[in-house]
Order: sequence, then structure tokens, then C-alpha cells
Amino acid sequence: MTDKNRLEKQFAFCLEADKEKSIMRQTRKTDGVSKENDAEHAWHMALMCILLSEYANEPFDVLRAVTMILIHDMVEIDAGDTYAYDEAGKQSQRERELKAAERIFNILPGDQAQKLRALWDEFEEGETPEARFARTLDNIQPAMLNNATDGVEWKNHNVKLSRILDRNKNSAKGSEELWQYSLQNFILPNVEKGRIEDDR
Amino acid sequence: MTDKNRLEKQFAFCLEADKEKSIMRQTRKTDGVSKENDAEHAWHMALMCILLSEYANEPFDVLRAVTMILIHDMVEIDAGDTYAYDEAGKQSQRERELKAAERIFNILPGDQAQKLRALWDEFEEGETPEARFARTLDNIQPAMLNNATDGVEWKNHNVKLSRILDRNKNSAKGSEELWQYSLQNFILPNVEKGRIEDDR
Repeated sequence: MTDKNRLEKQFAFCLEADKEKSIMRQTRKTDGVSKENDAEHAWHMALMCILLSEYANEPFDVLRAVTMILIHDMVEIDAGDTYAYDEAGKQSQRERELKAAERIFNILPGDQAQKLRALWDEFEEGETPEARFARTLDNIQPAMLNNATDGVEWKNHNVKLSRILDRNKNSAKGSEELWQYSLQNFILPNVEKGRIEDDR
Repeated sequence: MTDKNRLEKQFAFCLEADKEKSIMRQTRKTDGVSKENDAEHAWHMALMCILLSEYANEPFDVLRAVTMILIHDMVEIDAGDTYAYDEAGKQSQRERELKAAERIFNILPGDQAQKLRALWDEFEEGETPEARFARTLDNIQPAMLNNATDGVEWKNHNVKLSRILDRNKNSAKGSEELWQYSLQNFILPNVEKGRIEDDR
């Protein structure tokens, strides 16, 4: 009886997770037209985490980081996606996301609810090797796509270089090498082309 | 110089992978309207693999299985999605997918190309604990979604019970418990409701 109840809770969570596929982000896919959603973004980051782990500044547990990545945006099922450069939305973001975390992770059996919630908190705090690397990827993956789609979303949102550098202020902490690559190959060429305003 | 070339190949592959977000499947999301794509499907399976690993028949390496899951449909970037119950499409599927695997994984540096290709082959063969569990999830995840969307895709495709059982003939090999749960909770209730024809 207990076991059946456990599995039911786990499947209830897996079904709830499906809603992430409908949370849209402001990053365009390489087709240049449609935007990606949270599930696609997490899949892409998880794959990149495995393939690029060798560039992390510190050794880390890849499975822990991948698990963190797979669930890092799950709170947006209730709280919605807050665009990286939406300052008004960001003010209420933390409160909305904490409430969402409380509801969503607790669909799981206690032990797994606790484990996933702790991983989400860890990602938010960004103070472990896994969280630092995951957060670096959370910035580099959209920069890669923005560059591949002619910087159109940077341009549409009138994003300035100072804001991008501020958002990436910790990116080098996860991987100095990946951050330098992203800066040189994804960000600065779009400054040169006038798609990102150089306000330094 | 060699290092820069390595990272360039890795990013080229990560960018190529983005195309999986446009490969549509025949499974509806829980909104009941839109269909999921390969990237969303892989993300969902990876999450389920981590949360449901305790039900595997045999111990397995979760990170290996998750990596396999994240890339298991990547060949469909070239070969397209072949619906599980499309017999004509399935005849040419293998040849199309082998050609795709040759092109896509070789975008990566040699060592990673070899590793991912071997994982994809392993998934296709289904003879290791990781592959058996991943393949079980590859059947259970869409059954969960089909059930949650009133079996509409089973009905639309006029899928018969014998075909579902045949497709799931190895599902119990990955996890007897998950297969029984799927059969009892996702599949048979839809037979009773006439959404799946009982042709046994």
C-alpha cells in the first residue's frame, strides 16, 4: 500500500512537470522564428553540462548538476518565466518562486521532495561547484542561441552590454574558459554589429 | 590551438542539437492540444529516469542512462520521427537513422563522438541495464501522456491493444513494476473506455 502511494506521487509529479513545456522563454531557437520553452532549455543545458564538464573550474558531480539543471526552472510552472532583463518582474520573482517551490516539489514523496527542493535552493544560491557550473550554462546556452539567431532578441529587448556583463558577473566562476568563449564568440561580435548597445 | 578547435566542435554540436526542438512527435502534452517534440520528450524521460530509478529490475548507472536518454532521438534531426505504429515508415527507419548517426555524432571531437555513438547504439540494441531501463521509459512516458489526454492520439491513430502490447514486449525487462503500473493505470483503462480497440 505504501509503495503504491509512493509511485502514485512520483507519477503525479512527472505529469505536473509536463507543464514546463508550455512555459515560454525569450530565446529563439536556431530556426530563428519560434522561441524555446523551459523544458527544451533544460534539456539543452543538461546535454551541454555533460559535454562541456571538462571546462569547469573545479571538479564536480555531473549527475548532481544535471539533476539540478533538469529542475532549475520548475517553479516557473506557477511563477512564470521572468526575462533576464525585466527589472520590474524581477522584484516579485523571488516571492513567487518560493511559493511555487513549496507546492510543486511537495507533490513528490517526502525524501525526493526534500532532495529536489535542496537542489533548487542550491542552484539559486550558486555557492557549490555544481551550482556554479549550472548557472554558467544557464547564461551561455541563451547567448549561444541569441548569437545564432543574429542577436534579434537582444535587439528586440534593447539589451545593453552593461546589463549582459552584470548578468554574467558570476559566469567565470563556473568556467573561466566557457565564459571567455561566450564573451568573445557570442556576445562581443554582436556589440560590433550594433545588435547590443555598447554603453560601457 | 588544438583546444580551441575542440571547443568549437563541441559548440557546433550543441548548436546542431537545437534542431531536436523542432522534431515533432505524435504525443500530446497535458494541455491536450499541442504535441511534444523530441527535446521535450528527452527532458521528460531524463527527469523520470532520475526519479524512478529505484524501480529498475537491475542496478544501473543513472548518469549513463540519462546521457543515453538525452541523445536517444538525436538521429531524428535528419531521419525525422517515425511514429511507433507507422509500419511503412519503420521499414526505412534503420537505414535513415544510421546515416544520421554517422553525420551528427561526428560533429563532436573524436572521443566524444565515439562515446555518444556507442551510447546510441547501446540504446538501439537494448541489451544493457541502462538501455533496458531507458527503453522502458521511452514507452511509459508517452503512455502516461496519452492517458492524461483522454487517449485521443491512440484513438486518432486507431491503435489496437495488440500493437501496444507488442511495442511494450520488452518494457518489463527494464522495470517489471513500472510496466505493470503503466499497463494497469495508463493503458487498460483506455481499453475499457473504448479509446484503444481490444483485438486480443
